[in-house]
Amino acid sequence: MTDEQSPVSSFEGAACPLPLKHSDQVVMGHGSGGKMSQDLISNVFMPPFDNPALRAGDDAAVVLPNSSTRLAISTDSHVVSPLFFPGGDIGKLAVCGTVNDIAMMGARPLYLTASFILEEGLDMDLLRQVAASMKAAALEAGVHIVAGDTKVVQKGKADGLYITTSGVGVIPSAVDISGSKAKPGDAIILSGPLGDHGIAVLAARGELGFITDVVSDTAPLNHLVDAMLKTAAGSIHVLRDPTRGGLATTLNEIAHQSDVGLLLYEERIPVRPAVSAACEMLGFDPLYIANEGKLVAIVQREFIEIILSAMHSTQYGEQAVVIGEVQPDPSGRVLMKTSIGSTRVVDVLAGEMLPRIC
Amino acid sequence: MTDEQSPVSSFEGAACPLPLKHSDQVVMGHGSGGKMSQDLISNVFMPPFDNPALRAGDDAAVVLPNSSTRLAISTDSHVVSPLFFPGGDIGKLAVCGTVNDIAMMGARPLYLTASFILEEGLDMDLLRQVAASMKAAALEAGVHIVAGDTKVVQKGKADGLYITTSGVGVIPSAVDISGSKAKPGDAIILSGPLGDHGIAVLAARGELGFITDVVSDTAPLNHLVDAMLKTAAGSIHVLRDPTRGGLATTLNEIAHQSDVGLLLYEERIPVRPAVSAACEMLGFDPLYIANEGKLVAIVQREFIEIILSAMHSTQYGEQAVVIGEVQPDPSGRVLMKTSIGSTRVVDVLAGEMLPRIC
Repeated sequence: MTDEQSPVSSFEGAACPLPLKHSDQVVMGHGSGGKMSQDLISNVFMPPFDNPALRAGDDAAVVLPNSSTRLAISTDSHVVSPLFFPGGDIGKLAVCGTVNDIAMMGARPLYLTASFILEEGLDMDLLRQVAASMKAAALEAGVHIVAGDTKVVQKGKADGLYITTSGVGVIPSAVDISGSKAKPGDAIILSGPLGDHGIAVLAARGELGFITDVVSDTAPLNHLVDAMLKTAAGSIHVLRDPTRGGLATTLNEIAHQSDVGLLLYEERIPVRPAVSAACEMLGFDPLYIANEGKLVAIVQREFIEIILSAMHSTQYGEQAVVIGEVQPDPSGRVLMKTSIGSTRVVDVLAGEMLPRIC
Repeated sequence: MTDEQSPVSSFEGAACPLPLKHSDQVVMGHGSGGKMSQDLISNVFMPPFDNPALRAGDDAAVVLPNSSTRLAISTDSHVVSPLFFPGGDIGKLAVCGTVNDIAMMGARPLYLTASFILEEGLDMDLLRQVAASMKAAALEAGVHIVAGDTKVVQKGKADGLYITTSGVGVIPSAVDISGSKAKPGDAIILSGPLGDHGIAVLAARGELGFITDVVSDTAPLNHLVDAMLKTAAGSIHVLRDPTRGGLATTLNEIAHQSDVGLLLYEERIPVRPAVSAACEMLGFDPLYIANEGKLVAIVQREFIEIILSAMHSTQYGEQAVVIGEVQPDPSGRVLMKTSIGSTRVVDVLAGEMLPRIC
């Protein structure tokens, strides 16, 4: 062993007896969707792959294969554990996750691909059940799964199955949506209560320590987006689904992309009592819990009422409410007016909170 | 234990003492790319997902998001073991694999997505090396990686990293290529020698038992396809890259899709001496070994010379040769005239030969 490798060095070095060697290895926090995921992307993937579509940092890339058609393209791997949970399974999640990423660009999702990494020994009936869920979700969303792939790895080299879906959608010409389009004066709308998915998956893992009846909100949001666009396409500036990292992380990304400040009103943010109770017992903040069937919309103030009314007329937007507003500053920050009247900073998720939530 | 579960039943049942319970579980052979993979697709995935684009069974799906643009869409997960091998690594493979699937529809690949499943503890420098390989391959192919995703799973739930790439390309209007377009009288062209990738990966695993200098042929083939299309787009009926399952499996798929017989001339099929030697020692047939930088073209006989000359002018088509011809029957079968003058059936790969080759 060389001096360099020695865990305890001389006093001058003042080494920690348990040095945290995280910087040179992947740790669970890199998959959190928060600060560490962003660091991984900007340090490892962005330098070699850099291009305008990727740099935009939206849920899907916007590309122009010819002069007349703007496409939205997106991909997501799904490694949720367990594979089945109240309200969904990895198959439903894989379809809805990518449908929603496409829809968040204001695009109509049309085609999906699905690629499966299967662990040797996986029960074939379980796989059929997952495929049936994918079919049901694709049917509801109105998308076709047009291409696929299947790989098998040895026992112990995966965890049942992983599914990667990619999607392609067409962006209507009137639409101009991006995380960079929020403007001071805009209103922030949330489509429904926070945290259902994260708490439902935790419950399915048996990690809550108590029984809850919370059900995942996993759902395809493209019809909700359609209804919103039909009403007031030009006045919708940002759409984003607050998945991994939760609403807090999503809003921080938008504040950063748009160079604006976002102000939330705590008492207006809907959280179901059961989710609230679970979070209190576990020390979680619902603002950081993953959702799989909710969206945030940042819209021109004058159109709040007609957009809300369009949302309320759809299955997944019934409980939509205004939760805040866009301000010129502090640029790149999210603030929250708490129920006791103070204002606090809502930061991005730092490391790992709930691994393998999607 | 009930009677039903007993491994040895009465004489009347005549049960095998080691019953093969494969039908209800995923086994390694389901990832081979051969007969078992096809069974998995047609039994588990095709019934729920069935649609014309998927049913076509080509390397990429052809879709029409509007009246003027035909897109080719494809996806592949990559689980190759080891991650680095002579001539490439999982990153280069992930880019070239999807670029080639798109190119095999005669499409110009434009955009890729890349989704990473990382195992906790993965060395960050290794990941940077893989990303650099992807960049180099994307640059050579002329494609942009426009969207991505990263998930992390616990140690022991993956094998270093898995990469799923998806791709989108535009099909020029003069192109009409599909596995179903082979016609009696057509010639079968192979772009170069068989088996390099499979043997190189086996060597990297240390499973050969001897030293070889075989290098994987992993390469983006879109520029080769471009050169062929520029010469004689309308006379190219089928393009396909013989990856998992090898040339034999690929040709069986085409024979089946086109309802024709394919006749190969054994002595014209190029195989490097080192690959040939490795196959002989291991009891493998080069016809079933995976390639990652070769293509099969089925073309109108009258255009053989100009297509070959276009291929010979490119880096990855220098050694292109005619290896057979299309006949009206036996429909759906591949036959080979052997070097000793007999004719044998070349069947599809039955089960597992080389797991995790791509």
